[in-house]
Amino acid sequence: MDLRRLRDLLDRVGRGQTPVEDALTELKDLPYADLGYASVDHHRAIRQGAPEVILAHGKTPAQVIGIARELARTGQNVLVTRLDADKAPAVCAALPELKYVALSRTATIEQAPVPVLGTRPVALVSAGTGDLPVAEECAETLRMLGASVERIYDVGVAGIHRLLDRRDVFERASVVVVVAGMEGALPSVVGGIVAGPVIAVPTSVGYGVSFGGLTALAGMLSSCASGVVVCNIDNGFGAGFAAARILRARERY
Amino acid sequence: MDLRRLRDLLDRVGRGQTPVEDALTELKDLPYADLGYASVDHHRAIRQGAPEVILAHGKTPAQVIGIARELARTGQNVLVTRLDADKAPAVCAALPELKYVALSRTATIEQAPVPVLGTRPVALVSAGTGDLPVAEECAETLRMLGASVERIYDVGVAGIHRLLDRRDVFERASVVVVVAGMEGALPSVVGGIVAGPVIAVPTSVGYGVSFGGLTALAGMLSSCASGVVVCNIDNGFGAGFAAARILRARERY
Amino acid sequence: MDLRRLRDLLDRVGRGQTPVEDALTELKDLPYADLGYASVDHHRAIRQGAPEVILAHGKTPAQVIGIARELARTGQNVLVTRLDADKAPAVCAALPELKYVALSRTATIEQAPVPVLGTRPVALVSAGTGDLPVAEECAETLRMLGASVERIYDVGVAGIHRLLDRRDVFERASVVVVVAGMEGALPSVVGGIVAGPVIAVPTSVGYGVSFGGLTALAGMLSSCASGVVVCNIDNGFGAGFAAARILRARERY
Amino acid sequence: MDLRRLRDLLDRVGRGQTPVEDALTELKDLPYADLGYASVDHHRAIRQGAPEVILAHGKTPAQVIGIARELARTGQNVLVTRLDADKAPAVCAALPELKYVALSRTATIEQAPVPVLGTRPVALVSAGTGDLPVAEECAETLRMLGASVERIYDVGVAGIHRLLDRRDVFERASVVVVVAGMEGALPSVVGGIVAGPVIAVPTSVGYGVSFGGLTALAGMLSSCASGVVVCNIDNGFGAGFAAARILRARERY
Amino acid sequence: MDLRRLRDLLDRVGRGQTPVEDALTELKDLPYADLGYASVDHHRAIRQGAPEVILAHGKTPAQVIGIARELARTGQNVLVTRLDADKAPAVCAALPELKYVALSRTATIEQAPVPVLGTRPVALVSAGTGDLPVAEECAETLRMLGASVERIYDVGVAGIHRLLDRRDVFERASVVVVVAGMEGALPSVVGGIVAGPVIAVPTSVGYGVSFGGLTALAGMLSSCASGVVVCNIDNGFGAGFAAARILRARERY
Amino acid sequence: MDLRRLRDLLDRVGRGQTPVEDALTELKDLPYADLGYASVDHHRAIRQGAPEVILAHGKTPAQVIGIARELARTGQNVLVTRLDADKAPAVCAALPELKYVALSRTATIEQAPVPVLGTRPVALVSAGTGDLPVAEECAETLRMLGASVERIYDVGVAGIHRLLDRRDVFERASVVVVVAGMEGALPSVVGGIVAGPVIAVPTSVGYGVSFGGLTALAGMLSSCASGVVVCNIDNGFGAGFAAARILRARERY
Amino acid sequence: MDLRRLRDLLDRVGRGQTPVEDALTELKDLPYADLGYASVDHHRAIRQGAPEVILAHGKTPAQVIGIARELARTGQNVLVTRLDADKAPAVCAALPELKYVALSRTATIEQAPVPVLGTRPVALVSAGTGDLPVAEECAETLRMLGASVERIYDVGVAGIHRLLDRRDVFERASVVVVVAGMEGALPSVVGGIVAGPVIAVPTSVGYGVSFGGLTALAGMLSSCASGVVVCNIDNGFGAGFAAARILRARERY
Amino acid sequence: MDLRRLRDLLDRVGRGQTPVEDALTELKDLPYADLGYASVDHHRAIRQGAPEVILAHGKTPAQVIGIARELARTGQNVLVTRLDADKAPAVCAALPELKYVALSRTATIEQAPVPVLGTRPVALVSAGTGDLPVAEECAETLRMLGASVERIYDVGVAGIHRLLDRRDVFERASVVVVVAGMEGALPSVVGGIVAGPVIAVPTSVGYGVSFGGLTALAGMLSSCASGVVVCNIDNGFGAGFAAARILRARERY
Repeated sequence: MDLRRLRDLLDRVGRGQTPVEDALTELKDLPYADLGYASVDHHRAIRQGAPEVILAHGKTPAQVIGIARELARTGQNVLVTRLDADKAPAVCAALPELKYVALSRTATIEQAPVPVLGTRPVALVSAGTGDLPVAEECAETLRMLGASVERIYDVGVAGIHRLLDRRDVFERASVVVVVAGMEGALPSVVGGIVAGPVIAVPTSVGYGVSFGGLTALAGMLSSCASGVVVCNIDNGFGAGFAAARILRARERY
Repeated sequence: MDLRRLRDLLDRVGRGQTPVEDALTELKDLPYADLGYASVDHHRAIRQGAPEVILAHGKTPAQVIGIARELARTGQNVLVTRLDADKAPAVCAALPELKYVALSRTATIEQAPVPVLGTRPVALVSAGTGDLPVAEECAETLRMLGASVERIYDVGVAGIHRLLDRRDVFERASVVVVVAGMEGALPSVVGGIVAGPVIAVPTSVGYGVSFGGLTALAGMLSSCASGVVVCNIDNGFGAGFAAARILRARERY
Repeated sequence: MDLRRLRDLLDRVGRGQTPVEDALTELKDLPYADLGYASVDHHRAIRQGAPEVILAHGKTPAQVIGIARELARTGQNVLVTRLDADKAPAVCAALPELKYVALSRTATIEQAPVPVLGTRPVALVSAGTGDLPVAEECAETLRMLGASVERIYDVGVAGIHRLLDRRDVFERASVVVVVAGMEGALPSVVGGIVAGPVIAVPTSVGYGVSFGGLTALAGMLSSCASGVVVCNIDNGFGAGFAAARILRARERY
Repeated sequence: MDLRRLRDLLDRVGRGQTPVEDALTELKDLPYADLGYASVDHHRAIRQGAPEVILAHGKTPAQVIGIARELARTGQNVLVTRLDADKAPAVCAALPELKYVALSRTATIEQAPVPVLGTRPVALVSAGTGDLPVAEECAETLRMLGASVERIYDVGVAGIHRLLDRRDVFERASVVVVVAGMEGALPSVVGGIVAGPVIAVPTSVGYGVSFGGLTALAGMLSSCASGVVVCNIDNGFGAGFAAARILRARERY
Repeated sequence: MDLRRLRDLLDRVGRGQTPVEDALTELKDLPYADLGYASVDHHRAIRQGAPEVILAHGKTPAQVIGIARELARTGQNVLVTRLDADKAPAVCAALPELKYVALSRTATIEQAPVPVLGTRPVALVSAGTGDLPVAEECAETLRMLGASVERIYDVGVAGIHRLLDRRDVFERASVVVVVAGMEGALPSVVGGIVAGPVIAVPTSVGYGVSFGGLTALAGMLSSCASGVVVCNIDNGFGAGFAAARILRARERY
Repeated sequence: MDLRRLRDLLDRVGRGQTPVEDALTELKDLPYADLGYASVDHHRAIRQGAPEVILAHGKTPAQVIGIARELARTGQNVLVTRLDADKAPAVCAALPELKYVALSRTATIEQAPVPVLGTRPVALVSAGTGDLPVAEECAETLRMLGASVERIYDVGVAGIHRLLDRRDVFERASVVVVVAGMEGALPSVVGGIVAGPVIAVPTSVGYGVSFGGLTALAGMLSSCASGVVVCNIDNGFGAGFAAARILRARERY
Repeated sequence: MDLRRLRDLLDRVGRGQTPVEDALTELKDLPYADLGYASVDHHRAIRQGAPEVILAHGKTPAQVIGIARELARTGQNVLVTRLDADKAPAVCAALPELKYVALSRTATIEQAPVPVLGTRPVALVSAGTGDLPVAEECAETLRMLGASVERIYDVGVAGIHRLLDRRDVFERASVVVVVAGMEGALPSVVGGIVAGPVIAVPTSVGYGVSFGGLTALAGMLSSCASGVVVCNIDNGFGAGFAAARILRARERY
Repeated sequence: MDLRRLRDLLDRVGRGQTPVEDALTELKDLPYADLGYASVDHHRAIRQGAPEVILAHGKTPAQVIGIARELARTGQNVLVTRLDADKAPAVCAALPELKYVALSRTATIEQAPVPVLGTRPVALVSAGTGDLPVAEECAETLRMLGASVERIYDVGVAGIHRLLDRRDVFERASVVVVVAGMEGALPSVVGGIVAGPVIAVPTSVGYGVSFGGLTALAGMLSSCASGVVVCNIDNGFGAGFAAARILRARERY
C-alpha cells in the first residue's frame, strides 16, 4: 500500500464511504514498508548523496554490469568495489562511463554532485606496499562519500619514529583509519597518540601465521589502546563507510 | 631531561657559557618524553576529565587495591572493570570509597567532576539477559566519561518488531552501541536502520558453536550492513570508550 | 499506537475533525507493532499452546525465578532449560510449582492444557549414557509442545545390529531425532534407513578431538545421507522445537 | 542368499529333505540384505519417484558420464549437482539428453514422471546475488523431487522491511528454506516470523572472517530463533532434500 | 524373533502347517540380530576373554556402579577407564570387588581367567611424568586383554641417547606403543628404528601451543616415519585395544 | 670411523702399539653410525624387499627424476607417490622404466622380486568414487610391499546393508584398511564388526565443514569402536605401510 | 656396556685373549650411550653450572618432591617452574631448603655456586601487571643460569614514549627479552630499535580474541621487525634458557 | 626540524636574538626524528653493511623493480626475498645487475663490500628436499649479512643416526638454524645435543594435518628441548636475520 492508496482510504473514511471498522481491518494488514518506510530510505539516500555500492567480489562481470547499469540509470553515483583486474576490462568496456582505479580495485560513476562531508580530513595510515589496495579502497569510498583524506603511508611500528614524525596530521584529523597487515600493531600505537576515533582495518598481507589477516584482526581487537574499533579483513570500504557514519552525524554530538 | 634542564641549557647558550655545537650534541641524545610529551598526556587527561581505568581481570585483589589507591590519591576519578564477585569484597573492604555495581562488574570512585560529553544520548541496545553485564559495563564507562545513555534492552532479531518499535530512540541517538551474543545479527539490522555510527560488541553468551562469542564477533565483522565497527568479545568498556572518542572529537567534523 | 488510538484517529477523520493529510502524517510514524502485530504473536501462542521457554544457562537463579514467576502469572505453561543441579534447588525452592527433572536439566510448570501435536510419535535415538541429558531435554521439550516420543536409546554405529533391530520404530515415526556425540555417525546410518525428516543433534560427549561436540557436528553436517539437518551442539531443546515446527505445519504439506 | 535360494531352502524343509536344525544353521549365516532389504530400498525409490543423484564435485567428467549413463539406462530421472562450468561441456557433449543450468551448476535428465510432492510451495529465501547458485541448486532439487518453489530473493537483514513485505509468501509456504552468506542472520529473523519448519543453508559468500561460510553456519546454528535447522555450507541440494523429507512424510503427522 | 521362534517356524514348514510363501514373508521381516548375530557377538567375547569396558568419563558414579554391577553379575571381567579420583571412592565403596589404580584412573574386576594374548611383550614407551596416566591406562588395558607389557619410561627426543640405549626392548617387542605429549616427536624416532607396528598416542601434556594434545596429535599424523598409526588424545585404552587387535589376529598373517 | 679404522685400532691394541687408555679415549668419540648402524639399515631393506619410496608432492619433476634414477641404479624397486598428472609426463618420459597409474597417482619400478608378505589378504574398504585415488595408493603400496589386497568399494554408512553383505571378506582378511571422506563414519561400523586390526584413512573428499578431511579424521579418532587407529588425511601410502608393519612382524605375536 | 666393560675388552685384546674380529663384533652391538655419551652430558652440566629443572605443571606435589629430592641429593642446584600456589605449600613443607617465589611461581635450591654468564645484562621488557609472572619466571631462570637482568616493566605500545625513554637500557643489554600479551606488538617496536638478539614471549594475558595468548604469539611470529624469535605462550623459562644459550656460546661468534 | 634548523635556533639563542622561552616552546614541538634519530639509523646501516631487504611477496613486479632501483642507486646492497619464478623474469630483465637464485627465490645486488660477521659458521640443518627453498633463503640472507654457513641437509628424526653422525658440525657452529616441515621434530633433537643457540624454522612442507606448517610450528614451540626459539612458517630470511642479530652483538656477551 503506497501513500496514494492510504490517502484514498482516509478520503473514503472522511467521506463516510468506508466505515471505521473496515478501515481498521485494512490498516492492520498493511505491509510495513507501505507506510512510507521505503521512501524514508529513498529520502535519506538523496539527502546524503551517498552512492549506491556494488561489491563485485562473487559476482560475474555480467551481473556487475547489469546492476551498475540499472543504478546509473537513476542518476545516482555508483561505486563498484573489489573489481579485480581480470573482471575490470569486460565491465569497463560495457560501461564506458565507469572510471576504474586498478590499485584500489574500484570503479566509479560520478554523475551527481557529492556533498562535502566534514570540515576536517580523515587521516589514512598504512604500513606497507601490500596494504595500499585496501587503503586506497578506503580512500575512494571516502571520496565518493564526500570526505577529504590525508594519507600517511609507509609507516610501521618497527620504525616508530616515522610514525611519530607525522603527529601533526593526527592533530588535525577528524577520524583516523589505520590499515595494517602482519601483526597489526599500528592501531595500538596510533590509539595511544590520538584522542579521537580510530578505525582499524586488518589486511591479509603476510604469510604463515598471519593467517590471511586473522592475526592482524585479532591483534587489533585485543589492542591495549582503549576504544579502537575494527572492520573485517581487507574491508577498506567498510572503514571508509564507518568514518562517514561518524562525519555524517556530526550535528548530533 | 625535563623542562628545567632544557631551560638551563638554553640559558647557558644564551649567556655564551655553552657553545652551540655542544648544545647540539646534548640535544641529540635527549629522550623523547622529556620534551613535554608526557605533560601533554597529562594535560589531556585533566582537560577531558577521563577517569583512570584499571582492568581487574588477571590482577590479584592486592594489585587492584594498590593501583586504585595510588590513582585515587591524585584526586582523579577511577574506574575498575572486570571486578568479579569473588574479588570485589576484598577490594571494596580495603577501599570504602569504591562504589561497586555487581551487574556490570565495575567499581568507581567519583571525586572529580565529570564534564558532560555530547548533547545527545548514546543508544545502548542489547538482546538478552545474559548480555546485560557487558551492556552495563559499557553504560558505566559512558557515565564515567560524561556521556548519557538510553537503553533499549531485550530486543532480538527473532522478534524483529520489538526492535523496530524503538526507532525513535535511534533517531535521537548520537552513537548506537549494540551488544549481542549467539549469532550476533542485531548490529546488521540496526546498521540498516541507523545512519550514524554503530559500534557492535559481541558477547560470550551462548553455547556450542557460539564459540564463546567468536561466532557473534565474526558475524558482526561480516555484517551485510556497511560501516558497522566491532570491539573485542565482551568488551563493553571498549565500546563505551570508542563512543566517547567519537563524542570527544565532535568539534572536528 | 494501539488499536484504540487508531480507531480514535479514524473516527476523527470520519467526523471530519482531522484532515486527511494530518491523519496521513500521523500514520506514517506509526510504530509497526501497534498494527496488531504483537497481538498476532499473542494469538499464535494461545492457539498453539506452546509454553514460554527460559534458557537458564547464563542467568542467575534470581533472574530465572523472576522471569518464570512473571510468565507463570499469565497462566501459560513454562519450560526452563539448562537448569543445572547447582542452580535448581534455589529456583525450585522459590517456585514450588516447578517440576524439576535432573537428567534433562529441565523444569516445567504445566497449568494450561497442552494440545496434542501430531498423530504419530517422534522417534528419539541416542547412542550412549552421556547423551541422555540432551536426549531427555528434547523429550521434555516435545512433551511440553504436545508431541509424543518413542525412545531408542543405547544404539551405536559400532554395534549396528542393535540399531537395525529397531526398524519398526522408524517405520511408525513422523520425525526422527538422532542425538549422538563422539564421531556423530549415527544420523548418517539412520538417514539411509528412514525416508522422513531426520534431525541430528551433536553432543559434547567425548574427549580429545571430539572437540566438545564439534567433530560430531561437522560429521553430521557432512553426512553422506542426503537431507539430514542439524542443530547446535547439545541443543536438545532446538531439536524438539524443530520437530514441533514440522508437526505443527502438518496441514500445509 | 537371494529369495530364490531362501524359497529352495524352505521347500526342502517342507518336503522333509532338510532337517530343521540344518536349516536353522544355514539361516543364521544368512547375509542381511538377502532378506529383501535391498528390494525394499528399490521399492521406496520407485514409490517416491526420487531421482538418482550424482555429486560431480571430486569426480572426473568421465566418471560423471559413466555413472549418469548407467543410471539413465534404467529409465530413472537423474540429477547431477556441482557440475562446474569447466566440466559441464564435456559431460553434456557425451550425454545430449542432459539439461544443464549454469547458475545452479546442475544437470538433469527427466524421463520419468515426477509425482507432485506437497500441496503448498516451499518458500526459498536468499539474500544476495552471490547466494543464487546455492539457492537455485535447492530449487532444481525441489523441482526434481516434485515440490513447487516460491522465490524471495534479494532480501537481507540490513534492509529488513524488504523481507517483512513478503510475509504473505511465508504464510502460504509449507517449508521455508533460507540461503544466506556473510553473517547468516536471515534465518533468525525468518524463524521469528514463521511457525513452520525453517531450514537454513549457509553459503561461502563473503570474505575475511566469513571464513568461507563458517561464520554464517555457526551463526545459523547459534540462532536465537528456536528450532531452526541447518545444512552444510553451500548445500542447496541437502536443503531441498530435507524439505522433501518433510513433505514426503505428510501423511504421518 | 529369537532362535526358538525361528525353529517353530521351520517346524511348522516341515510339518506342512505353514506354506512356504507365508514363511518367506515372515522371514523377510525378520530383525537382523534375531538370526543369532548377537550370540555370535557373545561367543566372540567368551572366546577372547575380553573384558567389558566402561568409560567412566561423562557418567555419574551411580551410572558407573549400575553398569558395572550388571556386567559383573554375568561373571565377565570388567574394566572401568577414566575413573577420576573424585568419583572413585563412591564407586569403589559400592563395588568392593573393584581394584582401583589411581595413576591409570582404571578399576578392574577380574573374576574370569584372562587368556594369554601373544608370545612377545608390547613395548610401552613414554616421555615424561605427565604421560604416565595415559601409558598406564594402556598397560592396564593390555593386562586385562591378556598381553604382557615392557615399559620404557622417561625417554625423550631431547635426550635421544636414552632412547637408543633401549633398542633391545624394541627388538623383542611385538608391537610398540608410544605415548608422548608436547611436540609428539617420539613416534617418528621410534618408527625409524622399529620395523613392526608402531601405535602413537598423543597426550594433553604441555601448555600454550600444545593445544591440549593437538600439536602432538598432528605431529604424529604428520610423522616422517612411514606407517605410524595414531589414536585419539590421551586414549591409552584405545592404543591398548588396537595392540590387542593386532595380537588377536596373529593366526591370520 | 668406519670398520676398517676400528679394526686398525684393535689391531694396534692387540699388537701393543696403542695403550688401552688411548684406545678408550678414541672410542669414546666414535660417531654412532660408524659402528655398522647404517649397514643394519641396509640389511633390513634387503631382507624385507621393501621398495625405496619417493613422495613426489613438493618436489619438482627434475628432483623426482634425479632421486628415482639414483635409487633405480642400485637394483632396488622404487615407488613414487603423489605424482600428479601434471608432473607425470615429464617424469615418465625421463624414466621409461616407470609404470605410472593415474588413478593412484603412483609410479613404480619393479626390478627386484617382491617377497610375499602375509598369507591372507588386506581388506581395502572405501566409500565413494572420490576416495578411489587414496584407496588405490594404498593398494599400490601394499602390492609393492608384497601383500595381497581384496577391495570392497562403494560401500557407505548411509547404505549400511551393502557393507554388511560383504562380511565374508572381513572374515578372511588379516588387516582391514578403511578409506572414507565426509563424516568418516565407516571405520566405526567396520570396527564394530571386525575383531582384527582396523586402520582408518580419512580423505579430503567433501566440501564445507568437511574441512578438507579434518572432519573425517576427527571422527575416526573419536570413533566409538575401540582400537581403531588412524593415518593422516589422504595418506593411503601410510595405511599400506602400517598394514605391512603388522604383516611383517607376524612371527612375533 | 660401561667404561669398565670396554676397558676389559680392550685389555683382553691387548693381552691377546680376544681376537680382533671377536672384539669387532662385540663393539658393533655396543649401545650408544655406553661410549661415554652420557658422561659428556654430565660433564657439560658440571662445566656450565646449569641447574636441573623440574616443570611442576602436570605433576603431583608428591612427584615434584620426589624428583627434587633426588636431584638435590647430588649437590646440584634445582629450579622448579610452574609451581602454583595450591601445590607450593605441600612441596615447600617437604623440602625446607626450597626458596619459593610466589609471583614467578618458581622454587629454587642453590647449593652450588652459579658461574657468571655474560658481562652485560639481559634486558627484560614487559607491558602489564598480568605479564609479571612470566617475566619473573624468566628472571629467576636467568638468575639460576648466572645471567644478570635489567627490568623495563610497565611499558606498552599504546604509550610508546615510556618505552622510548628507556633506550639506554637497550643500548647496554646483550639480549632483549620482551614479554607481552594482548596484541603482542611490543617486540615489533623493540626489534626496530635494537640491533642485537630479541626474544619474544607471548603471554596468555587478555580475553576474547586474545585466545589465551595465541594472538600475541601469532603477532610476534608475524612481526614486521626482522629476526625477532619467539617462545611458546607464557614460556618465561624458555626465553631465559634461550638467552643463556646465546650468552653461553659467546666465545664462538 | 633538521640539524641545520636546530643549529640556527641555538645560534639565535646564543646571539640573544631569540629569548629562551621562545626557544623552549619551539623545541617542545620538535618532531622526534629530527633529533638525528634517523641518521642513527643510517649510521647503523653503514656500520653493519646490512643490505636493504625487499619482500617481493604481495608486491607487483613493477613495485619490486621500483623499490630495488631506488635502493640500488644509493650504493647499498639489496636482497629481494620471495621472488617467485613467475615474477622473477620481469624483475631481472629490468634490473640486469640482480643475481637471481631460483631455489631460494632470492635476488641480490652486491655492490658494497659485506663485512665478515662472526668467526664461526652458522650450522644450517634441514630435513627434506621440500625444505630446501626455505633453508637456502636463510643461507642467502646469512651470506648477504656476512656470516658463513655450513649445511647439514637431508637429515631427519626417522633416520636419527644420519643426524648424530654430523655432531662435529654442531660442535664448531656459533648458531644452529634448523629448518623442518611435517611434524617439526628435528629442533627438539638438535636442541638436546647442542648447548648454543638453536633457531627453528617450520616449513609448509607436508599435507593433511601438517596444516601448511602449523603443526611443525606448534611442535617447535612446544619442544621438550629447553630454549629453542622459533620463526614464522617458511621464514628462512627471519632465521638468518636472527642469527645475524646474535653474531652482530658478540662484543656484548
